Amino acid sequence: MAEAGIGGAALSPGAETTMAEKLWGGRFQRPTAAELERISESFSFDRRLAGAEIRGTRVHAHRLRQAGVLDAAELAALERGLDQLAAELDGGPPPAPAAGAPEDVHTYVFQRLLAAAGDAARKLQTGRSRNEQVALDLRLYLLDLRPEFERHFAALLTALAGFAEAHAEIVIPGYTHGQRAQPISLGHHALAYAEMLLRDRERFEQACRRLAVSPLGSGALAGAPLAYDRELAARELGLERASRNSLDAVGDRDFVAEIHFVLAQLGIHLSRWAEDWILYAGAEFGWLIIADEYATGSSLMPQKKNPDALELIRGKAARLAGNLMQSLVLQKGLPLAYNRDLQEDKPALFDSLDTARDCLALAAGVAASAGVDARRAARAAADPALLATDLADLLVERGVAFHAAHAQVGRLIAAALAAGDADFRALPEAELQRFLPQLPAADVRALDAARCLARRDILGGAAPAQVRARARELHRFAARTDN
Amino acid sequence: MAEAGIGGAALSPGAETTMAEKLWGGRFQRPTAAELERISESFSFDRRLAGAEIRGTRVHAHRLRQAGVLDAAELAALERGLDQLAAELDGGPPPAPAAGAPEDVHTYVFQRLLAAAGDAARKLQTGRSRNEQVALDLRLYLLDLRPEFERHFAALLTALAGFAEAHAEIVIPGYTHGQRAQPISLGHHALAYAEMLLRDRERFEQACRRLAVSPLGSGALAGAPLAYDRELAARELGLERASRNSLDAVGDRDFVAEIHFVLAQLGIHLSRWAEDWILYAGAEFGWLIIADEYATGSSLMPQKKNPDALELIRGKAARLAGNLMQSLVLQKGLPLAYNRDLQEDKPALFDSLDTARDCLALAAGVAASAGVDARRAARAAADPALLATDLADLLVERGVAFHAAHAQVGRLIAAALAAGDADFRALPEAELQRFLPQLPAADVRALDAARCLARRDILGGAAPAQVRARARELHRFAARTDN
Amino acid sequence: MAEAGIGGAALSPGAETTMAEKLWGGRFQRPTAAELERISESFSFDRRLAGAEIRGTRVHAHRLRQAGVLDAAELAALERGLDQLAAELDGGPPPAPAAGAPEDVHTYVFQRLLAAAGDAARKLQTGRSRNEQVALDLRLYLLDLRPEFERHFAALLTALAGFAEAHAEIVIPGYTHGQRAQPISLGHHALAYAEMLLRDRERFEQACRRLAVSPLGSGALAGAPLAYDRELAARELGLERASRNSLDAVGDRDFVAEIHFVLAQLGIHLSRWAEDWILYAGAEFGWLIIADEYATGSSLMPQKKNPDALELIRGKAARLAGNLMQSLVLQKGLPLAYNRDLQEDKPALFDSLDTARDCLALAAGVAASAGVDARRAARAAADPALLATDLADLLVERGVAFHAAHAQVGRLIAAALAAGDADFRALPEAELQRFLPQLPAADVRALDAARCLARRDILGGAAPAQVRARARELHRFAARTDN
Amino acid sequence: MAEAGIGGAALSPGAETTMAEKLWGGRFQRPTAAELERISESFSFDRRLAGAEIRGTRVHAHRLRQAGVLDAAELAALERGLDQLAAELDGGPPPAPAAGAPEDVHTYVFQRLLAAAGDAARKLQTGRSRNEQVALDLRLYLLDLRPEFERHFAALLTALAGFAEAHAEIVIPGYTHGQRAQPISLGHHALAYAEMLLRDRERFEQACRRLAVSPLGSGALAGAPLAYDRELAARELGLERASRNSLDAVGDRDFVAEIHFVLAQLGIHLSRWAEDWILYAGAEFGWLIIADEYATGSSLMPQKKNPDALELIRGKAARLAGNLMQSLVLQKGLPLAYNRDLQEDKPALFDSLDTARDCLALAAGVAASAGVDARRAARAAADPALLATDLADLLVERGVAFHAAHAQVGRLIAAALAAGDADFRALPEAELQRFLPQLPAADVRALDAARCLARRDILGGAAPAQVRARARELHRFAARTDN
Repeated sequence: MAEAGIGGAALSPGAETTMAEKLWGGRFQRPTAAELERISESFSFDRRLAGAEIRGTRVHAHRLRQAGVLDAAELAALERGLDQLAAELDGGPPPAPAAGAPEDVHTYVFQRLLAAAGDAARKLQTGRSRNEQVALDLRLYLLDLRPEFERHFAALLTALAGFAEAHAEIVIPGYTHGQRAQPISLGHHALAYAEMLLRDRERFEQACRRLAVSPLGSGALAGAPLAYDRELAARELGLERASRNSLDAVGDRDFVAEIHFVLAQLGIHLSRWAEDWILYAGAEFGWLIIADEYATGSSLMPQKKNPDALELIRGKAARLAGNLMQSLVLQKGLPLAYNRDLQEDKPALFDSLDTARDCLALAAGVAASAGVDARRAARAAADPALLATDLADLLVERGVAFHAAHAQVGRLIAAALAAGDADFRALPEAELQRFLPQLPAADVRALDAARCLARRDILGGAAPAQVRARARELHRFAARTDN
Repeated sequence: MAEAGIGGAALSPGAETTMAEKLWGGRFQRPTAAELERISESFSFDRRLAGAEIRGTRVHAHRLRQAGVLDAAELAALERGLDQLAAELDGGPPPAPAAGAPEDVHTYVFQRLLAAAGDAARKLQTGRSRNEQVALDLRLYLLDLRPEFERHFAALLTALAGFAEAHAEIVIPGYTHGQRAQPISLGHHALAYAEMLLRDRERFEQACRRLAVSPLGSGALAGAPLAYDRELAARELGLERASRNSLDAVGDRDFVAEIHFVLAQLGIHLSRWAEDWILYAGAEFGWLIIADEYATGSSLMPQKKNPDALELIRGKAARLAGNLMQSLVLQKGLPLAYNRDLQEDKPALFDSLDTARDCLALAAGVAASAGVDARRAARAAADPALLATDLADLLVERGVAFHAAHAQVGRLIAAALAAGDADFRALPEAELQRFLPQLPAADVRALDAARCLARRDILGGAAPAQVRARARELHRFAARTDN
Repeated sequence: MAEAGIGGAALSPGAETTMAEKLWGGRFQRPTAAELERISESFSFDRRLAGAEIRGTRVHAHRLRQAGVLDAAELAALERGLDQLAAELDGGPPPAPAAGAPEDVHTYVFQRLLAAAGDAARKLQTGRSRNEQVALDLRLYLLDLRPEFERHFAALLTALAGFAEAHAEIVIPGYTHGQRAQPISLGHHALAYAEMLLRDRERFEQACRRLAVSPLGSGALAGAPLAYDRELAARELGLERASRNSLDAVGDRDFVAEIHFVLAQLGIHLSRWAEDWILYAGAEFGWLIIADEYATGSSLMPQKKNPDALELIRGKAARLAGNLMQSLVLQKGLPLAYNRDLQEDKPALFDSLDTARDCLALAAGVAASAGVDARRAARAAADPALLATDLADLLVERGVAFHAAHAQVGRLIAAALAAGDADFRALPEAELQRFLPQLPAADVRALDAARCLARRDILGGAAPAQVRARARELHRFAARTDN
Repeated sequence: MAEAGIGGAALSPGAETTMAEKLWGGRFQRPTAAELERISESFSFDRRLAGAEIRGTRVHAHRLRQAGVLDAAELAALERGLDQLAAELDGGPPPAPAAGAPEDVHTYVFQRLLAAAGDAARKLQTGRSRNEQVALDLRLYLLDLRPEFERHFAALLTALAGFAEAHAEIVIPGYTHGQRAQPISLGHHALAYAEMLLRDRERFEQACRRLAVSPLGSGALAGAPLAYDRELAARELGLERASRNSLDAVGDRDFVAEIHFVLAQLGIHLSRWAEDWILYAGAEFGWLIIADEYATGSSLMPQKKNPDALELIRGKAARLAGNLMQSLVLQKGLPLAYNRDLQEDKPALFDSLDTARDCLALAAGVAASAGVDARRAARAAADPALLATDLADLLVERGVAFHAAHAQVGRLIAAALAAGDADFRALPEAELQRFLPQLPAADVRALDAARCLARRDILGGAAPAQVRARARELHRFAARTDN
């Protein structure tokens, strides 16, 4: 993409471009090198901006009419041409480029419009540059994706909430440092990720609102020398306002980096969820059953059922993080305003958008279809190690200082281990009384993971009632989004 | 930092810790390896969280009183102890650790409180873990920095707006692709960076609001088994609400990554500004004068005046980007909930906060003190190449299609160059008429950069009136922040 | 790519795969979800490994014959099939996938072989897994690219050396801190980048040698249970040796990350060169002329000549750095051995290889065709500020301590500036004598940039003789590579 | 660090620096801003380069003597001063800076030398700049660390080899996709990481050799105007050769980025090992026992034993990766030659060196002290799922095509599962014969993990003999390094 206006290819659509034909070719003696042509074309990836380019061009045409650059007939011809092109594309991108393809989406739309609307198309570049066109197209394109992303967020939130409701009483060990710590439930665990997603979604929304700014009227860098109502153009585009500095409008890409960050952080969250569920689905943990649809087998090892969907989700986080880094490196130390380097922002952005959307959809599918092996969960949850804290808490309730209580429980556990049985509840009553004189043995014996869980009946806690309540809130939230 | 409760060092403050003394040492036979002690201590960097730890502890104590864990006298003793410790630190961090220092800030505060308030301190760990303490402290610490960052943003915005107002009519070449494109002004250029900063500031604010959530009551991971009003605790801490899932509250660090991103993007913006101003201050561009205070000389080369402040700002962007990447890598694929890996989040976060604050302050100083060499600016702005687009526009105003106008101007420029003078305005009138029959020669001769600038009197455009208007808005905005 | 063996699609090539047909489908009740199929296919990008897959398969077949798994007729059939497939592809990749395409390149080759060689193909998976196949294919693919990269390195080195030889006496200011420092030459400057390239090339070579290791015989992860001469297989593949641990062989990708680093560092070097040359080609510096072939114009601004090739090269450095980061994040914390996450290593690797190769080629083209505006260079080189250090050096040669000499020169320069002329050489002789009593005025007046340059006749210094000597060495070096 | 020569602070050591005193202060009217002074000082971190600075200065002094700049007495005085300073520091860094500290290590050494050797010190800056001094110091500093790193590599290799030898027959499940795949041994698993370390170590060595190049004689950027034997200086410094371009020598930092990459890749490898061992030490896997010295407990949960050392190692990988990214971003698009941005290279480099060294040491400690729970390993290894592939292989040995064999085994496993017992070996003989008519039931029943392991007696395979042989090789390798 050259910086401004429309390349001379427009002059002879379809024909091979020579320097003589190029609008900017006047001062050039020799044709562009083949390796530069190849590396600098962007139509192969920016063609997905065609819909945005059409809308932006339409609004620009209206403003040019107001500024007196176009007359009514010219505007009407352009509108018909834009209608025709929009109908033809029907929301999709133009076909992949073949030989003789335009160098970028702006040239593509111009060429098509020239064919459809005639010379009026040649006036469109008045006061407009490709620098601002691409800045606008990217923004419109991102905003177009917003409903789709909202649906994907809602679908995954719904799946997690549904899983949580269904398994609010399936006790599993909670882990810290990768070691069994205290009982939680599978539902409680799933909701932790729902909270993360809510924040990712909020970040995405705020980024979208921040970028809903129109650069139209910024020209190549200094502003269009036209009587041009930029705020009206913004409103006609469905954007919140016009940008306030033309150099900033055509030269900055922080909105691209921000979307990258939002998606990368989403990817990191999903990678943690994937890691947990891969473990839970393995032979050692074993309480999660990945649906057949989201696993594959091995032709070599007949027993294998591999959680490929989750592994791919985990791996894609790397892609999203790498793309974020690219976006930041690209802009570091770059002088204002537009530089051709910025063309490089698009492949990575499109890749991250596709990747994040696919990961959300895949995650929703995995979460909605996963089953539970309650027997394996129960076996793990029966580990008495999970009860140690609560046993100390029982002593605290009887007036023992926590510090002393911890010591008493520690000695009891040591004694149970020494007796060859890790379950302190199985010790003889006399033993229990010796270590825990403040507590009836029955209270000790009555301790189990489900009781521990029920005691966490605090906002955000692991108690089933809390998990169900939050799951219902999430369902309501997701339902609102879905409509 | 071990995960929960308070390390046994508390039992014998000042003395060398032995395993027997460690609260968690019961099941351990051998003392911790020296290399693990060294790599795992965090007091050397987390001591700056002491103020937050004190405030969090106070609120927690109140909730424990409500839950019946502390009696009134214990609460009073703890409050006195906390008052005393707060007064002693007076907003600053505890001194740098020496031998025998506590392993982390939580142990430090506990030890001091034990000394000041006695055994009541031992009850503080009821239902509380260091996992949630550090999650809370980090949030409070970040929110404490908010006013300082707002002031720094305001100071830089003020400096840029002041510079813009003062130099709204100093015409310089605007650049695209690093080549002279159209006239802008030094003021217009400075305001482009003000717009970027406004967005950085908004992102910072939104990140702060999002993280203003209290984890108190989350326990080690499953929620505190207490009658504990978590929303009240949040309000008492000045936070917006209590977190909704205990695993998420102690195990996620997306708020750290988000702050990193906000600061990295700020750094990237400042790196671009620094790049531009370094160029402008060099012999080739030459229209910017860095104040002596922000430059250094060379002992080898007597003529040198180096823009070190700007170079350092440009370089610091790399540090901020690297820290962001660290934060994402740290969390990638990490199972829930707390893992010791997360201790690594703090050095990079503190480094980025310090770095970004220093860069903002330094940038404000550079911008507020910079001078202008109007003669050098005028010489560059006199380049007739900058007028080419506007000359074509003049033809368009006379009814020539832009496309034809561009060609006419191209031929004129080529002729001027061939005649050995790059300034087409200096061609004989007959020549001008031959190339531009639609235009009086006087109009061509009247064309200059200032006129081009004035024609960009569009919202966000380069015209001095637009620049001054926006600068005044920014002044008002910054003034509001400053109060 | 599932982990091991060949997917069941093989059983009915061309037909739609059902679970019943999948070799690993026995324990699965429901078909793979469409979104998993889409996200998990790799043939769209790994098809470029087909040549490597064919060679690896051939060597494996020979080893299976030796191990007694294949008989002579089977081996012969397979060899014919492989010959046929290789001839058909003729070094290129298979065509882009359409509906019903195999999921990966391994399946593709197997299906084609099954059609060409019959049931013998079914024995190929004995003791072999796709885990090791892809580990081998990637290595062979990288090594195949080595000569091409060597040629590109040589071409760019040749272009830089040629440029340096031609312009060894074109004096330009050398810069530190972006400020004019001492005279250098355009040739000396170009050779700095040649040195960087030599190191990039050496790193590339060492990385290639390190990865020239054969995983064949590693099986899915534990080693093939066969009498299989792994070292012989390595030799037959043209590799240096067999890997020493089967888990490492199928599970590690450090060689991918290393190639990424080598290419990212190359990209960073090229970004610095591009930055310098973009500046040099701009109106302010102005002594470099980018050939028309490597620049583009603007349809809006008739005067523009944009250095797009260099801007794109600068921007591509971000892509290479982002891909490196992806590669590291992908592997961070990943358990051994093969995980599906690793499938993600290929798109980024191929992208970096293509990008780096294109950048090298483009840079060579730009460097080989660039011209010089000697007049502009001379004007800049005439800046007396560049002579200050050498003037002090002249005093040192007359016995003045450098420290005192520096002060004397400083005072002289200040006096010249105060006299309204920056050129101290133009001061009256009396003045010169007053400031520099140790030095004949004629010596001061004789000082110029060319003389300063000539004084740097030290290994690696800026003197034309040094530059030419080094350029000749580089030519010889590149010529050796080219053959 | 200013660019060249020695700052004027030298003139009045200990006193507060004023601009009048600064050597480069002549053309400056106002003193440096406090915020620039603070952000630009480097002595707080570059003081660890003091030893390198002393050695570099000594060699430079010898070359100045040869060039006739110093006389014999001056050289002798300087040598005595350098001896004295070296003796005083005794290999360590100067003490941390207090108020009035020099701005960088170069100024520090100069000031001390001025005090010790008098005015001869003032001649040292002849033809030398801090740009080249710091480029040299960094290289010498890195090379100084080489033996220490080699020892750490050797220690960890030794620990892994020792662990592998001891546990070459402790069978555990091998995993792909996080699922049980085939039997391996704990020893085999440990050796996979030893292979990775060998490559990390080789990369470190090659990077060290590549950077063993002397910039001395490069001056500020253009080469020293002296008769100065640069190759002799390189030899005297113990370096391999002199650099070949002065701009490259003072302006490039690829050697810093390369060390970062080597350490980051090492960190990624260690993070994978840590992840595996954290899992193995958890309740679910359970066959690894982390020594008490490398674990911590919890004051809240008496049962906890947390693998903090491994978690920290895993987390530190993020730090190393972030530092690498910083190093690349720093240099992206930076014009030649020295820019003050480059000062930022040191904190991250020192941090990565310290971090990597600590991680190696900690890992060696963990690996050397870890124990094994053979009972837990045996229980996991008894999973018949691990035998499925080998059962198919037995059929292959009897002439069944692998494809058919796989199907037979699949049906057998399904039948065993349907019969309520996952162990197909426990099926009645008639059943076994029905599914596997080619195989004596006794052969099926004899199948166990140890036998499977033993069958992998192939180079790099899991068989105990292979593991022991490779462990012995590693021991010999590490022993050579250690001496």
